[in-house]
Amino acid sequence: MSFSADIVTLFPELFPGPLGASVLGRGLEAGLWRLRTTQLRDFAPDRHRTVDDTPSGGGAGMVLKPDVLARAIDAVSPRNDPRPRLLMSPRGRRLTQARAHELAEGPGAVIVCGRFEGVDQRVIEARGLEEISIGDYVLAGGEVAAMVLLEAVVRLIPGVLGAPESRREESFEAGLLEYPHYTRPQSFEGRAIPDVLISGDHGRIARWRHEQSLALTRERRPDLLPDDPSP
Amino acid sequence: MSFSADIVTLFPELFPGPLGASVLGRGLEAGLWRLRTTQLRDFAPDRHRTVDDTPSGGGAGMVLKPDVLARAIDAVSPRNDPRPRLLMSPRGRRLTQARAHELAEGPGAVIVCGRFEGVDQRVIEARGLEEISIGDYVLAGGEVAAMVLLEAVVRLIPGVLGAPESRREESFEAGLLEYPHYTRPQSFEGRAIPDVLISGDHGRIARWRHEQSLALTRERRPDLLPDDPSP
Repeated sequence: MSFSADIVTLFPELFPGPLGASVLGRGLEAGLWRLRTTQLRDFAPDRHRTVDDTPSGGGAGMVLKPDVLARAIDAVSPRNDPRPRLLMSPRGRRLTQARAHELAEGPGAVIVCGRFEGVDQRVIEARGLEEISIGDYVLAGGEVAAMVLLEAVVRLIPGVLGAPESRREESFEAGLLEYPHYTRPQSFEGRAIPDVLISGDHGRIARWRHEQSLALTRERRPDLLPDDPSP
Repeated sequence: MSFSADIVTLFPELFPGPLGASVLGRGLEAGLWRLRTTQLRDFAPDRHRTVDDTPSGGGAGMVLKPDVLARAIDAVSPRNDPRPRLLMSPRGRRLTQARAHELAEGPGAVIVCGRFEGVDQRVIEARGLEEISIGDYVLAGGEVAAMVLLEAVVRLIPGVLGAPESRREESFEAGLLEYPHYTRPQSFEGRAIPDVLISGDHGRIARWRHEQSLALTRERRPDLLPDDPSP
């Protein structure tokens, strides 16, 4: 059974979009993962296909109706579905590389894309939706966030990327930001490739890269370093 | 002069994609912001249109060549271009809602989308590219990250969203996660809308929502609370 993603959205036409390009797209065609979209509006019971209503207690914006969303979720994800049900939301716990690995090793995910002001809290609780956030900013809807989550996860599925060894030194895999890269030409606008990298001394190169990773992480993301004394 | 975005990418066909949908797409059509894509491969000097080469010092993957990327950047962004030049990268400083506001108030952005193992460090320095990250995970390329950045920024441009007042209570705008939302029906699978929200007492509703925001932030994101004593 390959990784199976179900997306509930008001904009199914946006998928696969970027997920159909390059290595992810080739993995999709090869059956290494599956993607299905469901139009939320198809589950509205009225002839106007209403999916939202004004917020209880007042305020701006519109809220996705619990009954319509519950029907859509039930249609794509039966009660015994082992896949996590995720709601893309800035209120959620943040997506991390560790979580991406965890999801990639599982059976897939049911992903609900919110729009408007938000989603009725009762359907979040009744259907066990786990709110998940891709970062501390607000988007117009959950669709691009769902693409980010799936891109981060699907590239970790065995066979999707060509060379698994290229992942080991990536940012976050070893708890550090990645060291700087260089390639030819040897001189670019008067700037040379650091001598150590053309020394042929693999031990020195590995040490230099580790020091660069450490320095960059200390400068930009001290929060990633376990021994950092700052808050 | 409206907000002007330039994207340098190996996959220009992915744009506008999600940025062409809904309110962002209507804003694009209305000229509230502009989007132009540039195919990086068009700036390769050889007939094979080579854009990458093996990493100096060894290792897996390929690195984007500095000369090719510099030529592409120079073509879309002259030396006196006031727009920031951003490189989507997990090594960058993290995008925040505050940074999205700052960018939305500016003239636009030149956004470079990396692919493969990374970008030659010398072109990052020579062209003053600012590395920016949308979160602590690794993607297959910078394209979806660029979409996230632009979606977060463009929706803040005056006129793009219908009701500016709906932004004030969003997650991160007041330093807290947003309170839960409810809408009709009054009873959903035996779950009622909280009484306070149908009380008509606006003061009580505002206090309840603030308490909910605070409790949710304390539970899920204590790092956002300034007085939190935990690390």
